[in-house]
Amino acid sequence: MSTSATNTAESRFDPKFTSHVVDTIGPATDDRTRAVLSSLIRHLHDFTREIELTPDEWMMGVRFMNSIGQASTPIRNEGLRICDVLGLESLVDEIAHKHASESGSPTSSSILGPFWSPNAPFRELGGSVIQDKHDGQVVYMHGQVLDLETKKPVANAVFDFWQASSNGKYDFQDPDNQTDNNLRGKFRTNEEGKYWFYCLKPTAYSLPTDGPAGVLLKLLDRHPFRPAHIHLMISHDSYKPVTTQIFPSDDQYLTTDTVFAVKDDLVVDFVPYEGDPKATLELKYDVILAPKA
Amino acid sequence: MSTSATNTAESRFDPKFTSHVVDTIGPATDDRTRAVLSSLIRHLHDFTREIELTPDEWMMGVRFMNSIGQASTPIRNEGLRICDVLGLESLVDEIAHKHASESGSPTSSSILGPFWSPNAPFRELGGSVIQDKHDGQVVYMHGQVLDLETKKPVANAVFDFWQASSNGKYDFQDPDNQTDNNLRGKFRTNEEGKYWFYCLKPTAYSLPTDGPAGVLLKLLDRHPFRPAHIHLMISHDSYKPVTTQIFPSDDQYLTTDTVFAVKDDLVVDFVPYEGDPKATLELKYDVILAPKA
Repeated sequence: MSTSATNTAESRFDPKFTSHVVDTIGPATDDRTRAVLSSLIRHLHDFTREIELTPDEWMMGVRFMNSIGQASTPIRNEGLRICDVLGLESLVDEIAHKHASESGSPTSSSILGPFWSPNAPFRELGGSVIQDKHDGQVVYMHGQVLDLETKKPVANAVFDFWQASSNGKYDFQDPDNQTDNNLRGKFRTNEEGKYWFYCLKPTAYSLPTDGPAGVLLKLLDRHPFRPAHIHLMISHDSYKPVTTQIFPSDDQYLTTDTVFAVKDDLVVDFVPYEGDPKATLELKYDVILAPKA
Repeated sequence: MSTSATNTAESRFDPKFTSHVVDTIGPATDDRTRAVLSSLIRHLHDFTREIELTPDEWMMGVRFMNSIGQASTPIRNEGLRICDVLGLESLVDEIAHKHASESGSPTSSSILGPFWSPNAPFRELGGSVIQDKHDGQVVYMHGQVLDLETKKPVANAVFDFWQASSNGKYDFQDPDNQTDNNLRGKFRTNEEGKYWFYCLKPTAYSLPTDGPAGVLLKLLDRHPFRPAHIHLMISHDSYKPVTTQIFPSDDQYLTTDTVFAVKDDLVVDFVPYEGDPKATLELKYDVILAPKA
């Protein structure tokens, strides 16, 4: 923490208060927990002093904080969404990626988001994640998973894919129109490290605004849209996993993504695809994995 | 915000990220909301960068945040309690008191806490807030409400009193042993600004540790005890209201109050009281109110 910031922020108020709160942390707390919570307490206190938060504003914050958990369910993680709106998930991702890239430069990571499912089924290479009706464009997606150091193919990598349907909703959110695991699937790369299957060109969508995240977005006078994107999580026992999102280059929300997850190298081109009656667009996307240390 | 702190904290990471998030706040957001939320975003980002928060730690934080609202009910405000444990309510109170005292020096304020009730009944002067069985010592409490500037008595002030029972629980928390509004009551000062009634000598108690506040206290290796205290809220249409707590001078937790609410001038002496069969202790406590501007 910057001492100068603290001194400035504390000048009108008891200069010992924050240190006293931090100093009450007991000896049984481990070093990392102590560091994280001390820093959190100092920054929350600095914020409170800097802005001279009033009791009414603080109580509004308490009610808002309680509303986050109350709006959350096993299939709706409003706490995660609030962090997304504040840019925290993308910042944590940047930090993690910095740590990972200090041993090389694999594919950029991006945020997991609240819609990943641990239950997505394995599907056959060449199959389709599209199970239900839609109004979208079908894409033949394919590519290769490669080793960062040797540039050789990575066989048996798990390519976990999920996306919203053409109405902007994930299966979880749309039980009337979508069956479980629609537009989700895991694929194993073949001996050449290749994967291929059919999916939809993704559609831009709004975060759900009927809960605390909607309240916050309204307070911030911000739109609730994410650019269209495909979620990917690529893993293999011998490599560091990559969680990422890829975005069509023609999306209008690329520069104002409401969860701040777009990075330049994650923007991809969907191109016309001919000669396959199953798809009208093609997306080739290769993934680079860094070996575990 | 201190620019130097931000520059230091951002040095390893994208220096434009936080500004970008803050700059997405739209034109319809009013100035105060913009200032509060910009400061909150900057401090949360500085915290995240300073400590290089990992995805697992962040996700633990998300789960913890959701648990706060999920543990809250109409009679249990766990969000408020988490703020208390982090010292935030006491800090907000200090700031509010600074603002109030810039027009004089009325009685020190302290935090409202989660146990105030809007439904406490008015009681007769000379009555008792003790409705149910207890193991405590009965106190004859009395005093005068005075005008800060004229030093004259304030008649018709509302003296709102609440306290935990001798088992450390408030009526809300203890439906098997306490009826509604046990140890709560509002009194109106008489023409001499005086109030008098019977209550209990307060008992130290533990915050409830079966929810998120207990998880946080355990992480911080801190005890969950508050020193014994009496809650007071004194109001009158022509004066600025005072919310405060008073603490017996012989309490063992005065210096380690787990919500950081003790101030020196709020520590009071309960003295032996003779000649009244209804009480064994006496507490004389005067309150100074500042006129509204």
